Amino acid sequence: MVVCLRLPSLTSSLFSPATTNSLRRSPALLGRWSGPRQFQPHSPLFSASTQGTAATETTSEDRVDGNSKNRMSNNPDRVITPRSQDFNAWYLDVIANAELADYGPVRGTMVIRPYGYAIWEAIQEFLNVKFKETGHSNMYFPQFIPYSFIEKEASHVEGFSPELALVTIGGGKELEEKLVVRPTSETIVNHMFTQWIHSYRDLPLMVNQWANVTRWEMRTKPFIRTLEFLWQEGHTAHATPEEAENEAIQMINIYTKFAYEQAAIPVIAGRKSRVETFAGASKTYTIEAMMGDRKALQAGTSHNLGQNFSRAFGTQFTDENGQRLHVWQTSWAISTRFVGGIIMTHGDDAGLMLPPRLSPIQVIIIPIWKKDAEKMEVLNAASSVKEVLQTAGFKVKLDDSDVRTPGWKFNFWEMKGVPLRIEIGPRDVSSRSVVISRRDVPGKQGKVFGISMEPSILEAYVKEKLDEIQSSLLGQATSFRDSNIVDVSSYDELKVAISRGKWARGPWSASDEDELKVKEETGATIRCFPFQQPQGIKTCLMTGNPAEEVAIFAKSY
Amino acid sequence: MVVCLRLPSLTSSLFSPATTNSLRRSPALLGRWSGPRQFQPHSPLFSASTQGTAATETTSEDRVDGNSKNRMSNNPDRVITPRSQDFNAWYLDVIANAELADYGPVRGTMVIRPYGYAIWEAIQEFLNVKFKETGHSNMYFPQFIPYSFIEKEASHVEGFSPELALVTIGGGKELEEKLVVRPTSETIVNHMFTQWIHSYRDLPLMVNQWANVTRWEMRTKPFIRTLEFLWQEGHTAHATPEEAENEAIQMINIYTKFAYEQAAIPVIAGRKSRVETFAGASKTYTIEAMMGDRKALQAGTSHNLGQNFSRAFGTQFTDENGQRLHVWQTSWAISTRFVGGIIMTHGDDAGLMLPPRLSPIQVIIIPIWKKDAEKMEVLNAASSVKEVLQTAGFKVKLDDSDVRTPGWKFNFWEMKGVPLRIEIGPRDVSSRSVVISRRDVPGKQGKVFGISMEPSILEAYVKEKLDEIQSSLLGQATSFRDSNIVDVSSYDELKVAISRGKWARGPWSASDEDELKVKEETGATIRCFPFQQPQGIKTCLMTGNPAEEVAIFAKSY
Repeated sequence: MVVCLRLPSLTSSLFSPATTNSLRRSPALLGRWSGPRQFQPHSPLFSASTQGTAATETTSEDRVDGNSKNRMSNNPDRVITPRSQDFNAWYLDVIANAELADYGPVRGTMVIRPYGYAIWEAIQEFLNVKFKETGHSNMYFPQFIPYSFIEKEASHVEGFSPELALVTIGGGKELEEKLVVRPTSETIVNHMFTQWIHSYRDLPLMVNQWANVTRWEMRTKPFIRTLEFLWQEGHTAHATPEEAENEAIQMINIYTKFAYEQAAIPVIAGRKSRVETFAGASKTYTIEAMMGDRKALQAGTSHNLGQNFSRAFGTQFTDENGQRLHVWQTSWAISTRFVGGIIMTHGDDAGLMLPPRLSPIQVIIIPIWKKDAEKMEVLNAASSVKEVLQTAGFKVKLDDSDVRTPGWKFNFWEMKGVPLRIEIGPRDVSSRSVVISRRDVPGKQGKVFGISMEPSILEAYVKEKLDEIQSSLLGQATSFRDSNIVDVSSYDELKVAISRGKWARGPWSASDEDELKVKEETGATIRCFPFQQPQGIKTCLMTGNPAEEVAIFAKSY
Repeated sequence: MVVCLRLPSLTSSLFSPATTNSLRRSPALLGRWSGPRQFQPHSPLFSASTQGTAATETTSEDRVDGNSKNRMSNNPDRVITPRSQDFNAWYLDVIANAELADYGPVRGTMVIRPYGYAIWEAIQEFLNVKFKETGHSNMYFPQFIPYSFIEKEASHVEGFSPELALVTIGGGKELEEKLVVRPTSETIVNHMFTQWIHSYRDLPLMVNQWANVTRWEMRTKPFIRTLEFLWQEGHTAHATPEEAENEAIQMINIYTKFAYEQAAIPVIAGRKSRVETFAGASKTYTIEAMMGDRKALQAGTSHNLGQNFSRAFGTQFTDENGQRLHVWQTSWAISTRFVGGIIMTHGDDAGLMLPPRLSPIQVIIIPIWKKDAEKMEVLNAASSVKEVLQTAGFKVKLDDSDVRTPGWKFNFWEMKGVPLRIEIGPRDVSSRSVVISRRDVPGKQGKVFGISMEPSILEAYVKEKLDEIQSSLLGQATSFRDSNIVDVSSYDELKVAISRGKWARGPWSASDEDELKVKEETGATIRCFPFQQPQGIKTCLMTGNPAEEVAIFAKSY
């Protein structure tokens, strides 16, 4: 592999590495920036026409304050709020600037823009294959559920009724029974399963759907908690409790592997406490991710539903001995919330940082020319590099606009989180080489000159670098996570850890009431009892009684 | 290629070609049929628990009469109603037996079951690539639209307001403004476009979403017209009317090509009359398909929206001269209705017949053994054939269940519309060959013995046969279509043609009132003014005035 340093070329002299971080979108760099095309700011507030109509309530999280408004104004040299200064403002800035999402006209709804949706598509593509490999079929259940269905499973209705959107008028007439816009589909799934399941030969029944769901949330935040969101929901029915348990575990394991290997998010997988278990489940398994502000994000869940829904809906089968038995069930889901998790795990002051395996663009190519005479040969070389990498299966984009300067483009694609940047100037064309920069290593250190354009060398180099970035992101997130989890053995230690913004891990066998007390007094909840448990004798941090497991406490989204 | 006839083997003697058509699911054949697994009938009516609650109205098409109820009863030897006897009953039987869909608990809603959904996934896979190739990005708009949006475009509200589902309660509170569950997204799209489009550099803006939509239809029919359905809706904005027109034409062309080449449906592409134009469009282009009962199905539409929505929503851009102008727009859609179109185009008395390119299973392998001693070698050979074909990229399934007889399996997979069947018995194993039957050619004629198992030969044969079936289906549908279109030159001729169940094609330049009169008197509407027009001077069939175009009249779904 040909990797060598070279003297500063046009590339590096025009845009020294320092530029990248210090002169971000300064007026000087934006001299040729002649329109609001890319950094088009848009108000995160509701448009005048609908504000105060469908928008029934607005909370501190789903609107911006005066300061943020300023940040969102039509000022081309504005910057992204530093992450350390205001994490929430940074998050909203990244979403707006990287054009991931926008606010819908109805309070708490979100428009997922093409770049954000492409991340979701990458998530779908991976998981969809895994679901099929493990024997699940996709299908589609209607989103309107008779209100009476929701009431059939006692804890389910208790959990969901405050969040329901109800259709009461259809085709101009008041409906006899209100319809729930699905917040989740266990009830309608069981209604249908009851018609399809008859004997043990119909089991296991394992299906999944990619769908939108609606929960009337009061505190909303793009991707993390929106009134409507996209997800997949798996639903299965089994003949025995063991099979259902195995399925629930299998699916949380698939989510865990996905989080680690694709999203580079070192989630902690475990079991939810009784208090935090899904409304209607016997057990809920979860993957919990630590965001950049050290708050926990529940990033995916898998529920062992036991016979709760099958008893409520009469979902029975005839076993080999002719006995009628209720089926054992699971459900499991990952949603567009995961996109928020990626942003808040890897992003930095420069903006988004995407794990290569889920990045809609893995390599951005930026051609650099000064004189018109150079333009053609540079663009030709850039196109052929693009062609080579595309053919090799990489997701590549060539930014050949001549409205923007290369410096503007550097910043822009850095902000969009593209893992690798290839620069090609006239000197590179002469030497048949390119300059490659890593998004995750700022400045000179991340920049290597003189990578040969020879297809086999270039492909191998790009592959190696993308793999390096992928594991480096995971490594960094893992270190960050581990340095922010504190082992505690008393409630006082827990309180200190939480007050310092950390996660607290300690033995727990106390009551639900004690758990709620912790929440009330510290703002932290049990995120999970991790599957990976330390060895040795454990004493409950709250009661001093013997404990079988440690729990992780944290503030969360 | 080794293709030769051989003497009747175990295969053919056990299940003579005649069996296929005459002994369908007779009690004899079903001797070993020990449970309601595959042919499980399910009532197409609403379950007792919800009937008459959410179900506000039931029409002749969305429920079955006494007769049909019988057909749907728990009788294992029931057959599919012959297509010629009752097309609608046949259609519902095929959907139930092939497990394509089921009725949801709310009137007019549909559950798309895995086999039906897999056809939709094949449609999605193909179109999604085409949309991206032509520069469109996927994204997602919220499904809740403030009611006031719908009212902004005058003809849009007129067209859609009778069909709306309205959310009036959210999170336990009465909403200040009712929310429409999207029937289509032009209004919310324009609301957002207005925030994203500023200068000519932001154009064209070309997006698509795969989503569910809701229309409160009174007469429903699985796939064809349901209260909620799945579709893709493309939305674009352009700087000039020419660009918008080109886009609308480009997309109807993509749909046309898709219908011909993937679905083997010889649609007629053309322009809708003013009366039939989409509510809010300047022009609507359509593809019209002839179903097996000779009714027309509007299978996809592409609208040139002109400036209707951009004026209503103020979607403007600044052109190169600094002038503010309204954008020119298009929208275009294909829905799960298309699955219904496939069923009703190709299906026959034996059930579904799927075009190979959209079939979830292209090749079904059925192992045949009598003695237990034969079982292992037959199954091994069947598995290795499956492996070979799968590796070659075909969608293959091996039905190795030993609960069913081969005869039962033949009928079952025929009914499911799988294009090719491979039979492997002990004699085939000895001769290293297989028997291959075509779904579209019944009996002996479609059956070829002695196809070598040698991978390259088998692959080439399967590929050739699938291609043949694909074009044969298109050919048959085209002949059927062409033999059922009658050229008419007077209203009397039109009436005769329509009364005979045919499509009538004739010159038309009469008024909207005349068009509505035709509908009232004959039940037929103008399906389209086809793009392909006959040469020569034309005289309006209704008025005798000069006409520029012929129109196609037909009864439709």
